[in-house]
Amino acid sequence: MCENFGVNPMRKVMFGDGKSRFSTVDGKPIFHFMNTSTFADYTVVDSACVVKLRPEPRLSLKNLTLLSCGVSTGIGGAWNTANVQAGSSVAIFGLGAVGLAVAEGARARGASKIIGVDINPEKFIRAQEMGITDFINPRDEEKPVHEIISEMTEGGVHYSFECTGNLDVLRESFLSTHEGWGLTVMLGIHASPKLLPLHPMEFFNGRRIVGSVFGDFKGKSQLPHLATECIHKDVKLENFITHELPFEEINKAFDLLITGKSLRCLLHL
Amino acid sequence: MCENFGVNPMRKVMFGDGKSRFSTVDGKPIFHFMNTSTFADYTVVDSACVVKLRPEPRLSLKNLTLLSCGVSTGIGGAWNTANVQAGSSVAIFGLGAVGLAVAEGARARGASKIIGVDINPEKFIRAQEMGITDFINPRDEEKPVHEIISEMTEGGVHYSFECTGNLDVLRESFLSTHEGWGLTVMLGIHASPKLLPLHPMEFFNGRRIVGSVFGDFKGKSQLPHLATECIHKDVKLENFITHELPFEEINKAFDLLITGKSLRCLLHL
Repeated sequence: MCENFGVNPMRKVMFGDGKSRFSTVDGKPIFHFMNTSTFADYTVVDSACVVKLRPEPRLSLKNLTLLSCGVSTGIGGAWNTANVQAGSSVAIFGLGAVGLAVAEGARARGASKIIGVDINPEKFIRAQEMGITDFINPRDEEKPVHEIISEMTEGGVHYSFECTGNLDVLRESFLSTHEGWGLTVMLGIHASPKLLPLHPMEFFNGRRIVGSVFGDFKGKSQLPHLATECIHKDVKLENFITHELPFEEINKAFDLLITGKSLRCLLHL
Repeated sequence: MCENFGVNPMRKVMFGDGKSRFSTVDGKPIFHFMNTSTFADYTVVDSACVVKLRPEPRLSLKNLTLLSCGVSTGIGGAWNTANVQAGSSVAIFGLGAVGLAVAEGARARGASKIIGVDINPEKFIRAQEMGITDFINPRDEEKPVHEIISEMTEGGVHYSFECTGNLDVLRESFLSTHEGWGLTVMLGIHASPKLLPLHPMEFFNGRRIVGSVFGDFKGKSQLPHLATECIHKDVKLENFITHELPFEEINKAFDLLITGKSLRCLLHL
């Protein structure tokens, strides 16, 4: 989906000579995957895809695996795109890895109220350990979620984050921010061809909406600083690794992800 | 339309006692209009609607009439909402009073390229005196306007302003900004119930869109400064008064406005 929408240019070959660096034993090319091809013991990547980390303080290799798309996206959505301020209120729609990374990012910035919205109540237990202060399950409520949030926050949150890729949820997250200054950050991937369910005049109430790719981090120059900041700000990256499996069981890892049972499953080669 | 969309709360009576300050000779109430009721020799307004100007430098009363909705909206759209920077490129869709006020604001800020887009070629002569450096008449072109602008500006303008209230124009103005940082400011009033013609994934290219009411000026506290700035920055307010008529000919003034012949017509009581 990222490729279809042009979010990330994904090369199957090296930039320099247009060729692959992998082949089968009988010499047929195997193409690169997602520019990095990290499902291999050794890989060759463009220098634009490599960053050098500071030696100290150092994150474990395990935790470093999380600083690719997803967790970085959520943290950066809170830190860079929204620039969440201490004492502010936040609503997060969808409590998968991205949504919980937003929660960690908002908590690290000192947000005083972090409302999590999800239809899966099993997600609430884990979310509580990761900064979420209040929960709403839309299926338990008769009113629209934005009305409940408005009552909880005297008019709406400062920032809302849409992490589901669902357009109805997008509209609820837009309306759950406060008139005049509310900011909605879109982090979910919207596969439907349907257009934004917002009327132009709804932008005249002072609410804003922006998209965010990779949490507005510049990978090459800013990832080393992010790694350091995760230590300084005590971002609990280890909480995102809910499962570990041998690489052979990658399909089981996908099942865990799709059914909402895992956040991230570490695969061992 | 402003009232229908809740852009501006328009009271027909005074806030304090819920009564009108006008009446017919036989005592029937005449209600207030647009909170100010300035179509009268004398009026009574809420203190929230009165501002005190600095004695020097002073704009003429004639020029001060322009610092209500429209001209202030355009200038503030450039100065406050977009915060146009020196040397930047700007595209303005719709060259009525609001669009030309954007041009004046962008020119005062030192924008190096100010592209005006309108289907009425008669507007181009006046626009040239008011900061517009390049013109596009969509009816003279085979390509979509955003493609022409992209070619003129090596990828798109920094800021675009939608001043027509037309959704197709809104989409063109969005696409005419540069990926990664382009900002579209909506100033037009959209009367159609149709929703925004943008797909959520189009926000992942880094383009942003915001609405702006009264150019984000706070009337009570910032209008005195705007009046001073119009003098300091040499904003040519007098150019916006294209006609003057006695109050009795107000309907003629409306005709001039609707047919695009006037920018602002000053009515003399």
